[in-house]
Amino acid sequence: MKTSLGELAHHLGCELHGDPSPLMEGVAEPCDAGSQHVAAILTKDRTTALERSHAGALLVAAVLDDPRPQLISNDPRTALARLVRHFCPEEEFERGIHTSAVVAASAEISAAASVGAFCLIEGGAIIEEGARLDPYVYVGRDVRVGAQAWVGVRATLCAGVKVGEGAKVGPGAVIGAQGFGLWREDGRWRRIRSVGGVELGEGAEVGANSCVDAGTLSPTRVGAGVQLDNLVQIGHNAQLGDDVIVCAQSGVAGSASVGRGCELGGQVGIKDHVVLGEGARIGAKSGVIGDVPSGATYSGYPAIPHGQWLRSHATFRRLGRVWRALRRLDG
Amino acid sequence: MKTSLGELAHHLGCELHGDPSPLMEGVAEPCDAGSQHVAAILTKDRTTALERSHAGALLVAAVLDDPRPQLISNDPRTALARLVRHFCPEEEFERGIHTSAVVAASAEISAAASVGAFCLIEGGAIIEEGARLDPYVYVGRDVRVGAQAWVGVRATLCAGVKVGEGAKVGPGAVIGAQGFGLWREDGRWRRIRSVGGVELGEGAEVGANSCVDAGTLSPTRVGAGVQLDNLVQIGHNAQLGDDVIVCAQSGVAGSASVGRGCELGGQVGIKDHVVLGEGARIGAKSGVIGDVPSGATYSGYPAIPHGQWLRSHATFRRLGRVWRALRRLDG
Amino acid sequence: MKTSLGELAHHLGCELHGDPSPLMEGVAEPCDAGSQHVAAILTKDRTTALERSHAGALLVAAVLDDPRPQLISNDPRTALARLVRHFCPEEEFERGIHTSAVVAASAEISAAASVGAFCLIEGGAIIEEGARLDPYVYVGRDVRVGAQAWVGVRATLCAGVKVGEGAKVGPGAVIGAQGFGLWREDGRWRRIRSVGGVELGEGAEVGANSCVDAGTLSPTRVGAGVQLDNLVQIGHNAQLGDDVIVCAQSGVAGSASVGRGCELGGQVGIKDHVVLGEGARIGAKSGVIGDVPSGATYSGYPAIPHGQWLRSHATFRRLGRVWRALRRLDG
Repeated sequence: MKTSLGELAHHLGCELHGDPSPLMEGVAEPCDAGSQHVAAILTKDRTTALERSHAGALLVAAVLDDPRPQLISNDPRTALARLVRHFCPEEEFERGIHTSAVVAASAEISAAASVGAFCLIEGGAIIEEGARLDPYVYVGRDVRVGAQAWVGVRATLCAGVKVGEGAKVGPGAVIGAQGFGLWREDGRWRRIRSVGGVELGEGAEVGANSCVDAGTLSPTRVGAGVQLDNLVQIGHNAQLGDDVIVCAQSGVAGSASVGRGCELGGQVGIKDHVVLGEGARIGAKSGVIGDVPSGATYSGYPAIPHGQWLRSHATFRRLGRVWRALRRLDG
Repeated sequence: MKTSLGELAHHLGCELHGDPSPLMEGVAEPCDAGSQHVAAILTKDRTTALERSHAGALLVAAVLDDPRPQLISNDPRTALARLVRHFCPEEEFERGIHTSAVVAASAEISAAASVGAFCLIEGGAIIEEGARLDPYVYVGRDVRVGAQAWVGVRATLCAGVKVGEGAKVGPGAVIGAQGFGLWREDGRWRRIRSVGGVELGEGAEVGANSCVDAGTLSPTRVGAGVQLDNLVQIGHNAQLGDDVIVCAQSGVAGSASVGRGCELGGQVGIKDHVVLGEGARIGAKSGVIGDVPSGATYSGYPAIPHGQWLRSHATFRRLGRVWRALRRLDG
Repeated sequence: MKTSLGELAHHLGCELHGDPSPLMEGVAEPCDAGSQHVAAILTKDRTTALERSHAGALLVAAVLDDPRPQLISNDPRTALARLVRHFCPEEEFERGIHTSAVVAASAEISAAASVGAFCLIEGGAIIEEGARLDPYVYVGRDVRVGAQAWVGVRATLCAGVKVGEGAKVGPGAVIGAQGFGLWREDGRWRRIRSVGGVELGEGAEVGANSCVDAGTLSPTRVGAGVQLDNLVQIGHNAQLGDDVIVCAQSGVAGSASVGRGCELGGQVGIKDHVVLGEGARIGAKSGVIGDVPSGATYSGYPAIPHGQWLRSHATFRRLGRVWRALRRLDG
């Protein structure tokens, strides 16, 4: 795995400032790096960490005043991701079905798929070529796991769920549980049966212990390339467009629609039936109770345009003074 | 499963507007429906979806200007729930104990119960008639699972938990884990042991990956018919009355008391030891730090009466203007 | 287990008011207690529960007007914790490896450790003396579980995680999943690989269904004695000092630093890269977007000093009146 700085610069599309010949063996935080490591300095405040670092080379956005060879990238975050992939590639996984797994006779499992220990695969399920099921994965009736998809330890795919090609489901995630649509019968709350399942798009990723509920009649849809962080809740019938980002502990309530490319901060809540236009951005901890136009940035609860929220908050901090001034005036 | 519209109208208690003879085979969203499907139009904004729909019949709250036969219900949500149950009944499940399950000798399991693959049942547990344990369910010591209860995939029932008759526990839920009551010993935080267990009332439902902690000495109680959504946290010693609703990602802290019929929106927090009177309603994302009277609606953090909160928020949005006006007036 | 009140007083370091000879058999809530039980009255509002209680003795902070013997502690919470431990000690667990567990040949498991049913231990893992793995625990490659640690039912320890001596991981917790560091490639969001793992310090505790993500290059660190409640999210590269407390449903985003002894209320969010000084306290539901000085208490979103937030909120409640007064003044 030893790679010269010259080769790395070429591989990452970086400019190299300094000697191309030293051989690197890995990438590390500045404080942990040795002479065989590249250390990434992605933000200015990290430069102080450099002085005590034993790193052999640096990855930077612009040349620093430092004698070591420097890989200079105008997109150092991407360069770092590629460096990590270069030095720490995913381990190969074993094809085949672990002897402890329980597989229904009517399930179809590609010979080029991997089914880990203690997996359970129900009837009618289809596991396509190159798909990887980590230990304890539950695959319900008539589930389809697309080619090259990776389903993490202990993920639960309830009946009828479709996992797109190359999608990833994190450890402990629950896809396709019954939705929270309530009605009354004989004096008690009941849940309407959810029979619509879930469709996770191609390359979508779901974080650890997150939940995506089944749709009532048609699928809850999570678009291609969507990124859901940990402990996220997606309600029944919700529709998430492609490339949406949802940070940790956020929730999208039933039947809400989140347009392509939207970005939701952490601990956000979206009310049921609300529509977010394409590319809308929602600040962390906000609660959205009405539609948001395409491209807009909203914050607060109830969420309002971000600039307005900032102005209101600047005054909120001084509300004690506001009250005293008013009493003086209105005496 | 083909059922004439006349029979459906009778079964659902609906009025029928149009021909009673067409045979229906299912219920579907307007966009997915064919001529053999009933499409439900529960809200006015859905009527636009009707024009392009190939549905053979409609379920509506009031007659629409449409040539198709219409089932008219003054409670269309309930009618829809019954339609789904009619066309998509729960599958029968197999009685008996899967060969891969591990069952302690002293556990008592009804012959009419179902114990799925990879279940583990500890000593002293009792599984009553008609109860269903999905795969990977963990049943701790001295747990009782009531008749007709349904414990979902990978749910964890820690020692001493009681699951009421007909109750449902969602996938990945953890019932009866140790509470978060802290004390100091030898300079370290410790948790006080929780030995009180949890009682889930008759017909109560717990959502996916939700947690209900064990009480310290007496049980944490979740009343009959309570509905907890996904990723909900119920702290040790909390007491939830019958028919309470808690939406996703809300938390009720230790020793709080939530009166019968209360409704908590999503991402709500209730402080420890707080008492919510019967039928109180708490708006989404609110934080309740003091008692709430019966029947009241509170919002915000700290939560205040909903009407007051709405008025304050109307001004909050204009606080930038408020500040400028004050500066003008106050020189 | 019968213990005289005199012995209990000695064991707990309490003063005894009344007869030392009665034998006690347990500790219970006032409403459930019988004559053989000690009932703890930790707060004044609990005294009303006393009148109907059949408890044989009381644990109190100061002598109450009640004829029963009373254990008087100036730290009754600690005395209660010790009472519970005295009467309800942890059950002994069986050493050895359950026959249903799957253990890689290269894993090293102490003969004095316990590996429960359906556990899976991957290659290179080390389980030290006295460690206890409850059923379904997943131990990834090269994981180390320290002596006397207790890993709860269905906890997931991904590759490279280190669990400190005496640490506890709650049911369903996921330690070491991939972080949420995103970058773009070929028009899609990707996650940068997290290869740094997680270090849980000595005696740290993680609650049910909580998540601690792996660091990118170096470990995400959770200090010694840290207490994480349920459904907590700790992002990649975050650093939590010793003895930090994080209440339920809070989240600490990537690369944030939480100083020793900080206390976070429930449903708090800490922005990525933020630094909380030692002993800082953050009110429930707050969102912290900038650094907080040591020892400070902050609340609100964006979080501000707690006293300022209280004053602002006192006016927030009256903003409707503020607006009307201003309109009157400003014409």
